Order: sequence, then C-alpha cells, then structure tokens
Amino acid sequence: MTTETTTPRIQIERLSRRIQQLAEIGALEGGGVSRLALTDEEGRGRDLVVSWMRELGLTVTVDRIGNVIAVRPAKDGSTERPVLMGSHIDTVATGGPYDGNLGVLGGLEVLETLADHNIETERPVAVGFFTNEEGARFAPDMLGSGVHQGALDLEVSLNTIGIDGTRVRDDLERIGYAGDEPCGDFRAAAYFELHVEQGPVLEEEGFTIGAVTGVQGISWTEWRFCGVSNHAGTTPMRLRHDAGLVASEVVCFVRDLATEFGEPQVATVGAMTFKPNLVNVIANDVTMTVDLRNTDDAVLKDAEARTAAFIQDAAARDGVTVTSRKLARFAPVAFDPAQVDLVEATAKSLRHTVKRLPSGAGHDAQMFAPNCPTAMVFVPSARGISHNIQEFTSEADIEAGANVLLHAVLAMAS
Amino acid sequence: MTTETTTPRIQIERLSRRIQQLAEIGALEGGGVSRLALTDEEGRGRDLVVSWMRELGLTVTVDRIGNVIAVRPAKDGSTERPVLMGSHIDTVATGGPYDGNLGVLGGLEVLETLADHNIETERPVAVGFFTNEEGARFAPDMLGSGVHQGALDLEVSLNTIGIDGTRVRDDLERIGYAGDEPCGDFRAAAYFELHVEQGPVLEEEGFTIGAVTGVQGISWTEWRFCGVSNHAGTTPMRLRHDAGLVASEVVCFVRDLATEFGEPQVATVGAMTFKPNLVNVIANDVTMTVDLRNTDDAVLKDAEARTAAFIQDAAARDGVTVTSRKLARFAPVAFDPAQVDLVEATAKSLRHTVKRLPSGAGHDAQMFAPNCPTAMVFVPSARGISHNIQEFTSEADIEAGANVLLHAVLAMAS
Repeated sequence: MTTETTTPRIQIERLSRRIQQLAEIGALEGGGVSRLALTDEEGRGRDLVVSWMRELGLTVTVDRIGNVIAVRPAKDGSTERPVLMGSHIDTVATGGPYDGNLGVLGGLEVLETLADHNIETERPVAVGFFTNEEGARFAPDMLGSGVHQGALDLEVSLNTIGIDGTRVRDDLERIGYAGDEPCGDFRAAAYFELHVEQGPVLEEEGFTIGAVTGVQGISWTEWRFCGVSNHAGTTPMRLRHDAGLVASEVVCFVRDLATEFGEPQVATVGAMTFKPNLVNVIANDVTMTVDLRNTDDAVLKDAEARTAAFIQDAAARDGVTVTSRKLARFAPVAFDPAQVDLVEATAKSLRHTVKRLPSGAGHDAQMFAPNCPTAMVFVPSARGISHNIQEFTSEADIEAGANVLLHAVLAMAS
Repeated sequence: MTTETTTPRIQIERLSRRIQQLAEIGALEGGGVSRLALTDEEGRGRDLVVSWMRELGLTVTVDRIGNVIAVRPAKDGSTERPVLMGSHIDTVATGGPYDGNLGVLGGLEVLETLADHNIETERPVAVGFFTNEEGARFAPDMLGSGVHQGALDLEVSLNTIGIDGTRVRDDLERIGYAGDEPCGDFRAAAYFELHVEQGPVLEEEGFTIGAVTGVQGISWTEWRFCGVSNHAGTTPMRLRHDAGLVASEVVCFVRDLATEFGEPQVATVGAMTFKPNLVNVIANDVTMTVDLRNTDDAVLKDAEARTAAFIQDAAARDGVTVTSRKLARFAPVAFDPAQVDLVEATAKSLRHTVKRLPSGAGHDAQMFAPNCPTAMVFVPSARGISHNIQEFTSEADIEAGANVLLHAVLAMAS
C-alpha cells in the first residue's frame, strides 16, 4: 500500500471552480442553470470549455454535428485508439450545475492531473462533449453522441427543428460549432462517463460511488381515453363513461405492477391532463403518459403487455375508447462487464464504498456501448434531485468520482 | 274520461318557435347558446321574453336584483298569493337551448293557454325568470332566486364582481334591468319549475316525466397533494413520494365508495392537474376536486368523512402532504311531498310514464322550497347531455312536460 501515497489525485479546488464558472453561464436564481442545447448561452459555455481545453494544449476538433473532442497524445505519438471520457454541457430549462457538466469537466481535470504529474500513457486520452444530450430543445435526446456512434443519421439530425422553430444546422452555424470533422471517424478504445446519479439510491444506501452496469430500457407511451362529459350530479355511477376514472385506475395498476415485479422495474405516470377539467363535469378526454423501465428487455416487454391489456379491459368496462401513441422505446443497454468490474475495483482500491447499479436515465454512454467497452461512474445526488435547480452533489463525492475516473482511465490507457 | 277531450293543452308549435327564437340570441355554431348572465346577449334575451309577456297583457315587474316576474290576475282581481312558475334564461358559455329557458317559456305557454281557453283561476298565476342561475359569470349560482327568497343578501349580491371584472349592479344598469321592485315582497302560494333533466335516467329507463323529489346535497372539495418531483427512471418505487399516485387512488376510492353506498350517491373527480406534468418526472404537485352528492345529508356527511380519512391515510402512506379547500357545500333540499305527488298524479292522468327522482343539479326551485310548496317537472335529456351545444330534448317530451306543468298549476290555482 506504500505506492498509494504517490498515486496521483485530481485537484478538487480546480474542478469545483470550473464547475462554478461554467454554471455562471445561463445561471438561474437560486443556483440552477438554463443552458439549452445550441442557444447563445450554450455557445458561450462551449467557448469556455474549449478555452480550457486549449490552455491544456489539447488538440480540439469539432465534428459536423457540433461534438467537441480534445485529445492528449500518447507516449511517443502512438496512434492507438484513445480512451475517451465525455458527457454534455447542455442542460434542461431548469437544470443544475452537475448533470453532464461534471463528466466533461471531470474528464478535463483528469487530463490536467496527468499533465501535472507528467504521466505518459500508451494510448491517447481524450475528453469530449456531445451535442443536445438532454433533448430539451431538439428531439431526440443524445443527438450528438447518437450521430457520432452511427445510431442517428447526420443529415436528418442537422435538419431537426426544435421547440423554438430553429434548425440544428442553423443554430450550429450561429454559435460557431458547425465543425468540419466527419462524424464517427473518431473511434475510442474505451469510453468512460462520470455523472451524477440523478436518483436517490447511493445517498439513501450510503455509497459514494456507483459502478453503473448499464442503462435501463425505456418505454414511453401516451394513452388517451375518451368517454362522455356528463353532469356530475345527474349521472348515476352505472351510466358513466368516465375517462378520468380509467386513467386513474391505470396509475394505480402500474404502481402495483412495478411493486409486484420488484426492482429495478419502475413505472411512472408523470403527465395527466383532464378535459374539460371542471369540478362538476365528468372528464371525457384524458391524456396520460406511462413510463416503464427495466434492465431486462423481456421483463420490460412483459410490463408493457400487461399494462396494455389492463388498459383495454378497464376502458372496455367503463365504455371508454382508448388510443395510444408510442413516444419512445429504447432497449436496455448493458455496459462491458470487465469495464464495470474495473470501475468497481478502482473505487475499492481508493477506499470508497461502491454499489453496482443500473442507470435509470439515458446517457451518452449508451450510444458508445455497442461500439467500444463502456462504463460509467456515478456519484450521489442529494435527495435524488436532478433536472432541478436544487441539484446538488457534495465536493467530497465529486472528488471521489473524479479520482475513480482518473484511475480507471489510467488502467485502460497505460 | 269524456272530459279529457276538452282538457286544455298547450300549443307545442308556439312553444317550440319561442324556444327557437330565444336560442337565436347568443347562438353558437352547431346549435348551442352562449348567453352568460347580464351580458348584452342576455339583455336582448330578456327584452324578447319581456316583449312576449307584455303581448299577453301580463303585469311585468323587475326587482332590484333583476328578477322578472309577469303575473296573470286571478278571477275577480283576487289578491291571493299567486302560483309561480319560473326558471332562468342565462346559460353557460357552451349551453343548449333548453336548460332554464324551457321553464320560462313553458310557463309563458301555460299562461297563454289559460288565455286561449279563457280560463279564470282562483289565484293569480305568474311566470318569472331569475338572475344568474348558472353562476358561470358571477358566483354564487342561483343568485337572483337566492336574493328573492332571502337566502342571499341583496347589497352583497349587487356588488359581486364577475369573471369579466364587472359588477352585478353595473351590468344590471347597463342592460336596463336594475329594477325598483323590492326583492322578496313577492310571495308565492306554490312554485313549479319545468326543466330538462340534464342527466340520462329518464331516457335510459324509458320515462317521459320526472317528478322531482328534491335536490341532492352537494359537497365540493379541492384537494392538493405535494410530494417530490424525482426522476422517473432513477427513483425506485420504494423511495417515491408521488402526488399523482395518491390523487389517482382517491379517484378510484370515491368511485368504489359511491358504488358501495348505492344510488343516489354519486362521486366525481372532474378536475385534476399534474405538475410539472412531464412524462419522466414524478408529479410533485397535484390538485384535484371531489364532488360528492346525496339526497340524505347524513349519508353525504359519511361519504365526506370516509373520503377525507382515506385521503389522509393514502397521503401518509406515500409521504405526500395534503391540504384541502371547501369549494361548496349545500345541504339536500326536499320538495313538498304533496306537490311532488301532484306532479306525479298529473303526469299519470295525462297518460305519461313518470318516475320520481331527485335532481342531481342545483335549480332555482331549491331557493323557493323552504318558503313555499315547491316541485319540479323534468323531461328527458337526450344521452343525458346538458351544458353542451348538443343538449337536446324532443318536441314530444317538451309538449308532455308543459302539459303536466299546465295541469299541476291549474290544480293549485283553481
């Protein structure tokens, strides 16, 4: 254990300062950040991060979808494929300072730590940030990493129109990030992403590090129920066609289903709209979303099928018509077992508590997973809160996570 | 039965024509009517009805809250208290041609039929319409009849500010219906109101006439649930505080409660609002209304208490806070048994099928019930639809209802 005293460590003050400086661009009252993809604010955020990359003497490239990658060369100019770290710097409209940004600035901190210690690596080591991960301004999310890894078409993505009516291609040009690097020419030997958990598990169970095993499969469906908007006082229960009742039964059903299936199954009805939405009129038009997630695609499919069957039965029983629209469907992604083991072992070697867990949210990492060994490092989110101005991760946890990232990358690059 | 051939009957063509003419004022595309209380449209509707009253030689008075009453004198100028028929001519924003209007124009038709047949009565017979029954523009509903019968204060009512920011007093003056007749000086010997059912029971069960036994008690409560808006993917079910789940459980509970209690108990959640209302965020702020109605106040109180207890338990179980606001509470109103019997017997004598049933909706009649013998005559609403441009009652049913009104009034006035 004597070597540990000379083991390099990241500088948390430097990393925290950069997180703070980046969070000032698009800062909201109360500590949050609004830096939607390809807005002027995000352009200024990009400029700041790129300036830090250049200060480190890294080779910065911008590809055609606006992804930015900065490479630190290997020993002796080796042209081995690099070990890549990355994430995103766009946020949701009421985001926090850590989601995405931590992975980018943590990666930058890893590169600066290597430089501080004059550490030479067998492979190049790189850090990048990918366009429009959040999907809050342009659909789909993970647009940049999706194009980068060949899952999305470049031309289609460049022509995507966002919620402001602008086109990805035009916004990239406006903010100066319509690069000329071909997408996907860059192939990594391995991909690592440091990220806040955005859930409560690590904090609740007292772990510092999450070794992420993969990303849950996601099934989003919008269901719409149409009944009859009769009078609440004059219509006996037996003569009702109550769209709101059917929708509410579905909310209870999916909760029961998730409980029955057990973890990691989750089921959520986050959106529900009643029409005409009056106290004394039976709702005749109710739209709701059902969000189902599981790491096992067969179980997820079972959850989808049982939900659909319940809905058809409940709607028929109450004489309510039902239509549905698939909003999103992603199969689960499993990260590379050896690389997950490496994250777990690295955390332990640094004397951090570590828990293997799946990610319930989507991340750029899932786009890399099919093409190169991939893993993620999670650090705790206070009260599980993210996509919220109250998003918070302690400096101690950030330091722990960045050091795990550093040593996992070193293991792969050396 | 030979006398039946000479029994007077209302003229349905005349009544239908007047319903049609009144419905043209504020007409909506597709057959509906928008004639909110004390708007210019409602003023023109009042002018039209008053012109018909004057054509019949009736004595028209307007009281200080804008109620209009037209009296046909009794035989020999008797000053006995009159038998009063009435309802309202204001509508909701998307109303139909029958709600309220039928009771006013049906009463007018009764008076014209008496004149046609030179029928003299022992008591005066009158027809009136009352200000702002719907409550769609000014709260509370049944404002005019409430003031008329002493349940509401005149000055408070005159100073009521409506949804357009205008005051009842000013709107009455603008449309020319700030009368000088003292409210409440007029006392009726009996009150009858012909009205569309606004529910599906008569049609569903094949009855032409409803002999209304009273008005259900109404309990409206707004409930608000506050939880935590965590991420739908990263928050295990066991760590959630899902406001939408608790609200949905309440929807299912009140349906089950109404089913368990049996008719005439009804329970409705017509309004529900999720925040932030996003597919992948657990709702942390959900507001819903619960509308409970019963003809038996003790049962209604039991329903209220059981609902409140369930809500407290469900909210505590999920770690969700709950607050509530009472929106409305009216005790049930029972109509005069002898007068309800009279309506039922009159319907039978005219060979119509008749069902005794409570009203699930509020009506001007409930304001008269404490002060004079009161009853209502219902006719079927197609598919139970009202407060909707599709509101429809067949001409045959309108004719039947108006004839029941005629003969019930004659029985009380002769």
